[in-house]
Amino acid sequence: MRLHVPVPVRWSDLDAYEHVNNARMLTLLEEARIAAFWSDPDADAPTAVLETGPGAPTVTLVAAQRVEYLAQIPYHREPLDVELWIGKLGGASLQVFYEVYSPVGEQPRTSYVRAATTIVLADRESGAPRRINDSEREAWLPYVEEPLTFRQQ
Amino acid sequence: MRLHVPVPVRWSDLDAYEHVNNARMLTLLEEARIAAFWSDPDADAPTAVLETGPGAPTVTLVAAQRVEYLAQIPYHREPLDVELWIGKLGGASLQVFYEVYSPVGEQPRTSYVRAATTIVLADRESGAPRRINDSEREAWLPYVEEPLTFRQQ
Amino acid sequence: MRLHVPVPVRWSDLDAYEHVNNARMLTLLEEARIAAFWSDPDADAPTAVLETGPGAPTVTLVAAQRVEYLAQIPYHREPLDVELWIGKLGGASLQVFYEVYSPVGEQPRTSYVRAATTIVLADRESGAPRRINDSEREAWLPYVEEPLTFRQQ
Amino acid sequence: MRLHVPVPVRWSDLDAYEHVNNARMLTLLEEARIAAFWSDPDADAPTAVLETGPGAPTVTLVAAQRVEYLAQIPYHREPLDVELWIGKLGGASLQVFYEVYSPVGEQPRTSYVRAATTIVLADRESGAPRRINDSEREAWLPYVEEPLTFRQQ
Repeated sequence: MRLHVPVPVRWSDLDAYEHVNNARMLTLLEEARIAAFWSDPDADAPTAVLETGPGAPTVTLVAAQRVEYLAQIPYHREPLDVELWIGKLGGASLQVFYEVYSPVGEQPRTSYVRAATTIVLADRESGAPRRINDSEREAWLPYVEEPLTFRQQ
Repeated sequence: MRLHVPVPVRWSDLDAYEHVNNARMLTLLEEARIAAFWSDPDADAPTAVLETGPGAPTVTLVAAQRVEYLAQIPYHREPLDVELWIGKLGGASLQVFYEVYSPVGEQPRTSYVRAATTIVLADRESGAPRRINDSEREAWLPYVEEPLTFRQQ
Repeated sequence: MRLHVPVPVRWSDLDAYEHVNNARMLTLLEEARIAAFWSDPDADAPTAVLETGPGAPTVTLVAAQRVEYLAQIPYHREPLDVELWIGKLGGASLQVFYEVYSPVGEQPRTSYVRAATTIVLADRESGAPRRINDSEREAWLPYVEEPLTFRQQ
Repeated sequence: MRLHVPVPVRWSDLDAYEHVNNARMLTLLEEARIAAFWSDPDADAPTAVLETGPGAPTVTLVAAQRVEYLAQIPYHREPLDVELWIGKLGGASLQVFYEVYSPVGEQPRTSYVRAATTIVLADRESGAPRRINDSEREAWLPYVEEPLTFRQQ
């Protein structure tokens, strides 16, 4: 199952070429991960939770990323539609995949970006990597899907 | 031959984890590319020039990127030492590789990041991709080296 | 009448002090202005429109800004509540005022920032300043309120 | 006496209007403050030191800012020339003033920005404001000059 995360674009995400800057796209993917995986004390918590976020005992570190930019992204008032799922669930790491599309309802639907982020969990205090625990694994299993295949690079 | 580009870190490149943010690293790589490849009307022009930059007829578009984060990057007053070279020189695209190290002179020398960017050239007006021309190819050939091999992702 | 604009905070708006960075606050105010004043071809257009935004014949230039930071802003999952109004409506410029509050519903309501931006309108092609026209003035009049008074600086 | 701080512009500091974004200018001023005032354990320490920076017991908090944008700033390969001085040295706060000019050597010299930042010192652990101590006051006195006068806002 894929999560659909609406991610707003800021006007200042555009660079002098008037499209969303390539580096800023990774900030948008970071926002999608946070919306999807961070634990939320409130009632509208996402189902796929991770005990991280400000003050939590676990931090998530980005170990690797891959991005393919398929089309230039102009300014949009409406949030981009980011599909997000887990491609690999390892012992101490997981791999998040994304497909970034034009805002919901916009025709035709444009596929802008395909990407992957390898994340490792670490203890906030010690900085030491830690293994994914059972409750996390259980929460995430419904979101495990086939990984994307990237063009050779 | 590899170019060595000093790339200053800004304090605001750090995120709430007090290390350089993963997305911001791509901005630092962008700065390294610009310093290395953009044409400069002034006397101190780099030898590996590209007729791009503000107002130039060619724009460079990022088609794909890969990054491996090997160690967290704390704040540095001195610029990071970015090694940069061309791994593949295609007909209408090139692939830039990077190894990002701690500032020159700092001991021990830390390898922070390994990365690659696939770039295509396009005409500023039409947006159409264009082929690498002979003078560009000649200017870049000395900087072609073996590509990096990344861990499987 | 004041507009209430919900402005989402990104995690990367936090700096190494784990609060929203002082410069980034101006990006959040920029987003509030855009949401409030830019024309929107779609049905859900705001009432206070300005014929600007990507591709429009008018650009808005920031001539001056003033910001008072009253309290540090931690990460919020919910959007900040930005109150926004026009303090002065001149011949070719206007002054936008803001009060930035904690997300709607959060108790107690915290006042984080008070700010003002002086904006001038300019023709996109020529770059020349242009006067506020009658339809803009009419659209904006309901949002004119008393300006904020700032501490001496 | 005014300090002259060279502050590099990044290409991504430009927004879709192809000039340095108004919010990003405050990041450039932040970099100028850091270069001028942060203590440096190395031999090339600036004379006007502040016991702050990563890991130091004091943090600097921005209480207020004022900026006047006099001219649009295009991309520059060479660093902007930021003049920086102290306009007011209070008991627990200081006010830093700036004039931002085109890169050294560029003709004609353009004045882009005039700005002021009110800074308070705070203890990193407790967050409580603290008074400027004698050694800081002594180090800063040579850099106290007449404050700028801003247009009415």
